[in-house]
Amino acid sequence: MPTTRLGQNQYGKAECRVVKIVRDGATHHIKDLNVSVALSGEMEEVHYSGSNANVLPTDTTKNTVYAFAKEHGIASAEEFAALLARHFVSSQEQIHRARIRVEEYGWDRIGGPGHSFVRTGQETRLAQVAYDGERYEVLAGLKDLTVLNSTDSEFWGFAKDKYTTLAETHDRILATDVSARWRYGWTGSGDAPDWDATYARAKGDMLQAFAETYSLSLQQTMFRMGTRVIEQGPEIDEIRFSLPNNHHFLVDMEPFGLGNEADAPDGPVYFAADRPYGLIEATILRDGAQQLIPLDVTLL
Amino acid sequence: MPTTRLGQNQYGKAECRVVKIVRDGATHHIKDLNVSVALSGEMEEVHYSGSNANVLPTDTTKNTVYAFAKEHGIASAEEFAALLARHFVSSQEQIHRARIRVEEYGWDRIGGPGHSFVRTGQETRLAQVAYDGERYEVLAGLKDLTVLNSTDSEFWGFAKDKYTTLAETHDRILATDVSARWRYGWTGSGDAPDWDATYARAKGDMLQAFAETYSLSLQQTMFRMGTRVIEQGPEIDEIRFSLPNNHHFLVDMEPFGLGNEADAPDGPVYFAADRPYGLIEATILRDGAQQLIPLDVTLL
Amino acid sequence: MPTTRLGQNQYGKAECRVVKIVRDGATHHIKDLNVSVALSGEMEEVHYSGSNANVLPTDTTKNTVYAFAKEHGIASAEEFAALLARHFVSSQEQIHRARIRVEEYGWDRIGGPGHSFVRTGQETRLAQVAYDGERYEVLAGLKDLTVLNSTDSEFWGFAKDKYTTLAETHDRILATDVSARWRYGWTGSGDAPDWDATYARAKGDMLQAFAETYSLSLQQTMFRMGTRVIEQGPEIDEIRFSLPNNHHFLVDMEPFGLGNEADAPDGPVYFAADRPYGLIEATILRDGAQQLIPLDVTLL
Amino acid sequence: MPTTRLGQNQYGKAECRVVKIVRDGATHHIKDLNVSVALSGEMEEVHYSGSNANVLPTDTTKNTVYAFAKEHGIASAEEFAALLARHFVSSQEQIHRARIRVEEYGWDRIGGPGHSFVRTGQETRLAQVAYDGERYEVLAGLKDLTVLNSTDSEFWGFAKDKYTTLAETHDRILATDVSARWRYGWTGSGDAPDWDATYARAKGDMLQAFAETYSLSLQQTMFRMGTRVIEQGPEIDEIRFSLPNNHHFLVDMEPFGLGNEADAPDGPVYFAADRPYGLIEATILRDGAQQLIPLDVTLL
Repeated sequence: MPTTRLGQNQYGKAECRVVKIVRDGATHHIKDLNVSVALSGEMEEVHYSGSNANVLPTDTTKNTVYAFAKEHGIASAEEFAALLARHFVSSQEQIHRARIRVEEYGWDRIGGPGHSFVRTGQETRLAQVAYDGERYEVLAGLKDLTVLNSTDSEFWGFAKDKYTTLAETHDRILATDVSARWRYGWTGSGDAPDWDATYARAKGDMLQAFAETYSLSLQQTMFRMGTRVIEQGPEIDEIRFSLPNNHHFLVDMEPFGLGNEADAPDGPVYFAADRPYGLIEATILRDGAQQLIPLDVTLL
Repeated sequence: MPTTRLGQNQYGKAECRVVKIVRDGATHHIKDLNVSVALSGEMEEVHYSGSNANVLPTDTTKNTVYAFAKEHGIASAEEFAALLARHFVSSQEQIHRARIRVEEYGWDRIGGPGHSFVRTGQETRLAQVAYDGERYEVLAGLKDLTVLNSTDSEFWGFAKDKYTTLAETHDRILATDVSARWRYGWTGSGDAPDWDATYARAKGDMLQAFAETYSLSLQQTMFRMGTRVIEQGPEIDEIRFSLPNNHHFLVDMEPFGLGNEADAPDGPVYFAADRPYGLIEATILRDGAQQLIPLDVTLL
Repeated sequence: MPTTRLGQNQYGKAECRVVKIVRDGATHHIKDLNVSVALSGEMEEVHYSGSNANVLPTDTTKNTVYAFAKEHGIASAEEFAALLARHFVSSQEQIHRARIRVEEYGWDRIGGPGHSFVRTGQETRLAQVAYDGERYEVLAGLKDLTVLNSTDSEFWGFAKDKYTTLAETHDRILATDVSARWRYGWTGSGDAPDWDATYARAKGDMLQAFAETYSLSLQQTMFRMGTRVIEQGPEIDEIRFSLPNNHHFLVDMEPFGLGNEADAPDGPVYFAADRPYGLIEATILRDGAQQLIPLDVTLL
Repeated sequence: MPTTRLGQNQYGKAECRVVKIVRDGATHHIKDLNVSVALSGEMEEVHYSGSNANVLPTDTTKNTVYAFAKEHGIASAEEFAALLARHFVSSQEQIHRARIRVEEYGWDRIGGPGHSFVRTGQETRLAQVAYDGERYEVLAGLKDLTVLNSTDSEFWGFAKDKYTTLAETHDRILATDVSARWRYGWTGSGDAPDWDATYARAKGDMLQAFAETYSLSLQQTMFRMGTRVIEQGPEIDEIRFSLPNNHHFLVDMEPFGLGNEADAPDGPVYFAADRPYGLIEATILRDGAQQLIPLDVTLL
C-alpha cells in the first residue's frame, strides 16, 4: 500500500566547464561555458525501485556536452543549448524534456588579434533552453552587472507606519547588481533570433536606461530598463529583474565637526553596506504578452 | 501608448540578521536568524511613475523585523515569520501578500547551561511563510547537510548511448549535500504543528533513511528519505529535494603498482571532485496530495 | 646583462582532495583531507630559461599524495604531512624544502558504528609540516570555530581622540570566529606528540577559556585562550590567533517606544553586522620561547 | 608566576567600505575602497589585564577612515593609506606602527562623462602602507586578473620518479589568475612615485609579458612578467607573484570516435578544472636589491 508518490523531477550533470578554441590562422577565438543538463521523463522506476534502465547516466550527459562542442562547435550559448536539448529528447525515448542552462564568461584580447586573452570579469552571460519534443523555450540574461548613479536619484513620499524612521532624500546614490532574464518569443519555427547581437543590445539598453533615468525609486528605474529592452528588441516578450538595492549611506560627520552633504562639490563620503539590502523584483511584459515565467522560478 | 506593462513583482528588505537573547536567570537562550521580507500588492504606480505612495519602505520592513523580535519574541522561525507576514498584509491595505523567508543558524552550549555558545556549523534551517489575507502557506527545510555512505551503494543497469563510457559499479561512495523543503498542510485553521519538533524529527528521518537505504541510485535513496519524512510526519504533504551527487572517484593506482579496490580492508583512496556533479531533484508527495510547489521555484 | 634575479620561490599542487576509508569489518573509518604541496630548491633554471630538468611536476606531487594515502594510510594529518615532506626532500636531491598544508574536515557517525556519516560542519582542522632535510617544523590549528558569549563582556576605559564616538558598555555580546595556529616544540627527535589528542585538547581548552573568561576586551579573552592551551599542552610553545570581533549591535528601539536593554530578561535584540569588523591578532608564547612564526605569515 | 607572554600583535577595524564621489560640475568621479587598519604598540596591558587605556577603539579607526576621506580626499589608494598610517602613529604615542591595507574596485563610465558607472569587474587593485614613525613601506598589487594563452605553451623535459604519469606536451593552454604585489623603493624621503600611473603601467607590463612570452613553464612566464615590471618601473625593487595554474585538460574524444588535437583548426575542446591546481610562487628582485617581503607573508 503506497503512502507516497513521485512528483515533478529532473536530473543531469551540472556545471560542465567547457572551453572551446577555434583557430583562424594565428587568430584564436574562445568560448568559455559552464553547462548544466536537466532531463525528465519516465523516471518512476529509478525512484521507486532503483532500476536505472531509463537513466542515461549524468556522466553520459557530461560526455555529450564535450563531444557536441567538438562535433558541432559553439556558435552561441543559446544555439549550443538548443542542440543539446533536442539531442537528449530525440535520441532517448524515455526522456520527454531537457533543460540546458549555460553560464558564459567573457574574454577580451590582450594587444590585438592572436591567442592571448584577459577575462573581462564584468557580468556573467546566461542562457537556458528547454525542449519538450515540440517547442523550445529560450531564456537569456545576465547577472552580476554592477551599476551606480552618483546622483539623480530620490526617494520620498512613501507610505509610513509606526515603524518608519527613514528620512526622505532628494539626492542619493542608486546602485545595484543587475540580474535579468528575458524570454524570447521564438519557439522553434521560423528564423531564430541573432542570439549574440540581441544579447549585446539588451545589455547596452539596460545600461543606457539605467544611466538616463532620473530615478524616484529603484522600481521605476527597473521598469524603464525592461521597457527599453522590449521596445528595442522585438524578439523579446518578457523580462524579469532581481535587483538588490546596494545601499550607500551618507556618513554622519557631525561628531567630527564636518559636513557631508550629497551635493558638496568636494565630495560626499558614503558607507557601502552589505546586509540587509532592499530587493526589488518584477517582470515587465510586452503589452499583450502573457507572463510565462512565474516570479519565484529560479533565475538559472 | 503603452508598450509594456508590469507583471508579477515583489519587494522588501532581504537578509536582516537578528539575534535574540532570552535570559532565564543565568541561563541564556539564543535565536539567530536571517530574515527576508517580500511584499506585493498595488504597486503599479511606483513602477510606472515612481510614486512611492503605496510603498512601505524596505527600511521599515527591516525595523519591523527587529521590533517584532522585541515585542513578540521568537518562539520559532515559522511562528515569527507568520506573525510578520500577517502584520504587513493586515496593517497596509495596499499590501496583498507577504512572504517571509528565514535562515536559522544553530548554536550548541559550551560546558552546560550558561551564556556561552559555539555554532553547530552543520545544516542551515529554513522556513518560509506566505500570507495573502486568508491563508498561510508554510514551507520549512534545511540546506548544507552533508552526508556520506562509504559502501552499500551501487550504480549499474543504466541506459547507454554512443557517448556512454561510465563503468558499472557495485560498491561506491554515495555522498550529497541535502537540500530539502517541505510544505505543511496547515494553512491557518486549527492548531499549528509543533514547528521545532517537526523540524528535528524530519532531519532525523532524513539521516536515518539515508543511512539505512541500500542504494541502487541516488534517486532511490532520495525517495526513501522523502517517504520516511511524510510517513512519520502527518503534518507534511510534500517534500522536495535538490541533491548534488558529490562524486568520489577511486584513484587509479595501477601506474604505481598498487591496487585500490573499494572493498580493500586497508582502505580505498578516493578523489573528491568539485565540478561537474550530478544533480538530482524531485518532489515526493503524500499519496492523494497535490504538488503545490513547482519544481523550479527557488528553494528559499 | 641581467637586470633581475630570482628571490624566494616554491611550487607544487594545491588542494588535493583525498578521502580515505578504512574498513574494520562493518565499521568504517573516514579521513577527509585537502592537501597542498609546496617545494623549493634549485629552481633557478626553470625561471630563467624554462628548463624543467629540476622540476618534479605538480601532477606528480598530486599522485604522490594519493599513493601515500594508499601505501602508508593516514594516521593523522600531521603524520601524513610529515611523511610527504620527508619523501620529497629525500628522494629528489634538487628539492631542499617541502611544506605540506592540510585542511581536515570532520565527520560524525549517523546512528552508531557502520558506514554512514554526517559532516560535523563546525571548525576546519589545519596542519602544516615543513621539512628541510634536517628538522621538521610542525604547525597545527583550526579555523571557522564560531563562538559567542551573550554576557560577561565589557568594553570601557579606552583611549579617545576627536574621532571617537563609541559609547562605553558594561554588557555586550562577545563573538568571534576562532582562527588559531600553534607550533609544536618537536622538530624530529624523540617521540612525536599524540597529534589527535593534542588537537582535541587544544580545541577544548580554547572553548573553555572563552566561556570562562569575564571579558574586558577581546584581547584579554584571546590571551587567556592561548595561555590555557600552552599551560595544558607542554608540546606547544607558541600559538597565534586571528579573531574578528563579530559585532552584535543593540538595536535602538526608542523610535518604536520600546526599551532594549542588554540585561532585559525578556531578551535584548541585536543586529549582527558583517563589515567592518574589529580584527584582533596576536601570538602568545610560552615564557622563554622564541616567536618563530612572524605575525604576518599566512595562516595556512 | 607568568607562564606565557605576549608576542607580536596588532588590531584595528577591517574592511571599512568607503565610497567617495567628487563632483566636477556634471562630471562625477568615484573612488571605491575597502580599507583595513592594523595598529601595534604598547599593548601588553590590554592582553594581560584587559585595561583598555592604550586602546584606541577599532570603532575610532573606522571613523577616522571616513573622516579622512572627507577632510583630505582620496588622491590614490597609496596616498590615502599613507595619510592614515602617519596619523595613527603621530597622534597616539602608544601606537608605534600602523599598517593600512586597501582594496580598490574599478568603475567605467556608462556613455561618457556624467554620474553613471558600471563596475569593471576585472582585477582588484591592492595597496598597503606601513609606517613606524620614521619610514614608510609601500606595497601595491592586484589580484584576480585572469589571463589565458591558447597556444605557445609547452611543458616537457621535467624530472620524473615512480609516481610520474604526466605526458609531455608541446601545445597547451596556459591560464592563471594573476596575484601580484610589488614593493616601492620610496620610504618617505624625496618625491613619491606617481602611484596611479605606476599601477597602470605595471598591470599593462604584466599583461604584455604574459602575452608575448613563448612559455616552457609557468615559472618562466612569471619571471618574464616580473622582470618587465621592474625594468619598466625604476620605482619598483621587488615583485612577488602567486599564480595558480588554471588547468585546461584536452578532453579524450577517442571513445566517441573523434579526434581532439590542440592544433586542430576547427578547435580543440578543453575541460577547465577547479581543484587541484598547480600553484607557482616567487619573488623577482631588481639585481642588487634585497628581498624584504618574505615569501609566506600574507598577500594583503
